[in-house]
Amino acid sequence: MNLRQMVQESDTAPGRIFDIAVLVLIAISIISLSVETLPNLSPQFKHSLLIIEIIITMLFTIEYILRIITAPKKLRYIFSFYGIIDLIAIAPFYMLLGIDLYALRALRLLRIFRIIKLVRYSKTMERFGRALAEIREEAIIFFTATAVILYISAAGIHHFEHETQPEVFQSIFHSIWWAVATLTTVGYGDVYPVTAGGRAFTFVVLMCGLGIVAVPAGLISSALSKVRRDEED
Amino acid sequence: MNLRQMVQESDTAPGRIFDIAVLVLIAISIISLSVETLPNLSPQFKHSLLIIEIIITMLFTIEYILRIITAPKKLRYIFSFYGIIDLIAIAPFYMLLGIDLYALRALRLLRIFRIIKLVRYSKTMERFGRALAEIREEAIIFFTATAVILYISAAGIHHFEHETQPEVFQSIFHSIWWAVATLTTVGYGDVYPVTAGGRAFTFVVLMCGLGIVAVPAGLISSALSKVRRDEED
Amino acid sequence: MNLRQMVQESDTAPGRIFDIAVLVLIAISIISLSVETLPNLSPQFKHSLLIIEIIITMLFTIEYILRIITAPKKLRYIFSFYGIIDLIAIAPFYMLLGIDLYALRALRLLRIFRIIKLVRYSKTMERFGRALAEIREEAIIFFTATAVILYISAAGIHHFEHETQPEVFQSIFHSIWWAVATLTTVGYGDVYPVTAGGRAFTFVVLMCGLGIVAVPAGLISSALSKVRRDEED
Amino acid sequence: MNLRQMVQESDTAPGRIFDIAVLVLIAISIISLSVETLPNLSPQFKHSLLIIEIIITMLFTIEYILRIITAPKKLRYIFSFYGIIDLIAIAPFYMLLGIDLYALRALRLLRIFRIIKLVRYSKTMERFGRALAEIREEAIIFFTATAVILYISAAGIHHFEHETQPEVFQSIFHSIWWAVATLTTVGYGDVYPVTAGGRAFTFVVLMCGLGIVAVPAGLISSALSKVRRDEED
Repeated sequence: MNLRQMVQESDTAPGRIFDIAVLVLIAISIISLSVETLPNLSPQFKHSLLIIEIIITMLFTIEYILRIITAPKKLRYIFSFYGIIDLIAIAPFYMLLGIDLYALRALRLLRIFRIIKLVRYSKTMERFGRALAEIREEAIIFFTATAVILYISAAGIHHFEHETQPEVFQSIFHSIWWAVATLTTVGYGDVYPVTAGGRAFTFVVLMCGLGIVAVPAGLISSALSKVRRDEED
Repeated sequence: MNLRQMVQESDTAPGRIFDIAVLVLIAISIISLSVETLPNLSPQFKHSLLIIEIIITMLFTIEYILRIITAPKKLRYIFSFYGIIDLIAIAPFYMLLGIDLYALRALRLLRIFRIIKLVRYSKTMERFGRALAEIREEAIIFFTATAVILYISAAGIHHFEHETQPEVFQSIFHSIWWAVATLTTVGYGDVYPVTAGGRAFTFVVLMCGLGIVAVPAGLISSALSKVRRDEED
Repeated sequence: MNLRQMVQESDTAPGRIFDIAVLVLIAISIISLSVETLPNLSPQFKHSLLIIEIIITMLFTIEYILRIITAPKKLRYIFSFYGIIDLIAIAPFYMLLGIDLYALRALRLLRIFRIIKLVRYSKTMERFGRALAEIREEAIIFFTATAVILYISAAGIHHFEHETQPEVFQSIFHSIWWAVATLTTVGYGDVYPVTAGGRAFTFVVLMCGLGIVAVPAGLISSALSKVRRDEED
Repeated sequence: MNLRQMVQESDTAPGRIFDIAVLVLIAISIISLSVETLPNLSPQFKHSLLIIEIIITMLFTIEYILRIITAPKKLRYIFSFYGIIDLIAIAPFYMLLGIDLYALRALRLLRIFRIIKLVRYSKTMERFGRALAEIREEAIIFFTATAVILYISAAGIHHFEHETQPEVFQSIFHSIWWAVATLTTVGYGDVYPVTAGGRAFTFVVLMCGLGIVAVPAGLISSALSKVRRDEED
């Protein structure tokens, strides 16, 4: 069937045209989404953006319906990773139709997930996904260890700095922000210890913590090499 | 014996229930510990937190006694890593009973080590521990090298910046804080060189030091891979 | 032929002298280029710099002509990497001859590419280039993933912080600057989240993003080892 | 001979005592050196520090003479790495004897190299040294590439930011400080781009530069593994 070929088979001529059309749509959508957030847009321009948004959503909806129709196993597609992303890319629009409640504004944010539709078109991204799957267990170790270290760091710095800087290190919860900014070495400079005890504690925490927070990069890069070697065999 | 099974054998039904109960206790304890540090708590709420703390400590004490009773070798458990952590999780409470001397406040901080009780329940954390053991020697190299580099950096920047910024770089001890924040690349921005000499020195220190400070992440990630391979064999 | 030997064959005596002369020229050119940007230069000094610039460009032009004349395949050299770099090193001067339009000032910047002429003289740089070629595919993955993560981070932080800090997080475009400074862990401290939501989002973004942004270093260092092993075989 | 045994053979009883004595001396020396920089020291205390310094230097001088006397090949020791470090550890004192010219103050700084005397007593540090030797060639690549990238970054940011922030980005030389703080991801926050062009340029520079600046850590950690494997064979 011609439609199935177009939607599902990327290596045929109609399939390639369909894919390029979707890629262009994603690009327009992302640009329009970003432009929308610019301050001081004229009402006419905002209106144009709204019309673009409506057209894009219509086209993504048609794409979604076509993918369901042409899928060999419809339910499997709907509940697949790509199926859910395709749905999230259009759902916020329909859920906000007619209503403009402030509380629902957050839904609009879901539209940024349209960028993830790109993954389908990138073979290299797939390899990245396989590399991540390869290190799933290590990733769990890493996240547990990171959570424990962040908590201990936050509790410790709160103890040392609370009295001197009661505003900044109000509670352990507030101190977690410091722990995040410090252990990732971002160090914005909005929160930092000033007491000798707090600084010594920061030193100890960094010496122990850096080794753990920086581990995943090493894991991912060796997993990528492994996935590549496996492919070459 | 039923009690031993419950406490020591995680793969039986009573063992699993006991483990989950302890995990829930740890979670409640950590949350209550953090909430306690929030500012502007009402006296009633503080009272409730105190009661929760008393109940949790009682239950952890019962857990500790049960573990001693059911341990095949009692002394070995008491002086094991887990035994000491279990003791630290309750000891501060008893040491502070009746007294509220300011100097002893620091003891309360020891309660955050309760979070380390989690390690017993995580097989992946054990693997992490084995990976750390694997690189013990390299870790010693790293810490020695880091200490030497931090000291030389602090002494050097003190020499260059002392006159221009006498407040910030008062002594070598004060300058160590700069060395820590810089060589870990945190860079809060509270202390930084302003003279040409100090900046050139910072450049040299970073070129030599980054390679050393960032090493442990690489060591840990390759040790993790090795531990995993050993397990698979 | 003597001229060809001098220009093309680095392992002969005249070749070595020619190479050293070019290296010295590059060094003088880079220093003069940098000194030119110093504020408060006297008109006489500026005049001297201009004369140095003219002489250097003349000499680089002679070098370029000699390389074309002595190249076994002239067109191939002109369109090779080195040929283009050699042209860029002199072209801006001729394009600005006589005219000093403000809009063309940017062309002067092209002169900094003269530093790339150094690559020809460094065998180790060549190895670096081969290592980069080795990981071309992974580099594409990395750049795609980085672009996607930066965009999602910017859109997310804009959502959380826009209302509290409308000046700093004006639009998604403005927020990308925050995403760049944060995910590379530079953290200048000119832009950072202040709301609880924004901070929690930053935490999530850093946990997911650090593993990706820090990957290329791992890839390059393993590619360098591989290139070296291949050479040794 | 008894003296030779004491000085040169660490595995005998007198050798061990000698080594421990030197280690204690190094520690006292480093502490006294640091305390000296503290502000508001009383004249009496400063006097005590001076006496400690004189005694330490005398003892290090005796150590140096003993090492020369007992060395199997005297000249070889004097010009060895350890021999030079041992000399630097005492030379500044003698060069400053009687004179206290301001210009010679910098010589006092040389005393911090006493900390490097520690290396002799650490077998693990030796392994670190061998690992560094292993990657000598790659280190040269890295330093060349880093220098080129820093220069191009500085020249570029100067072009973009010079007009908007003439004070901060005065010249290419001033801009190198920004390039160092940014590409090492320290990001103090004292210097950062504010124009759209400068920010876009920073993004490009970071994407290209991070992969290079972070490479040495990977190289060192894999060299350490290699050195270890070689030892085990």
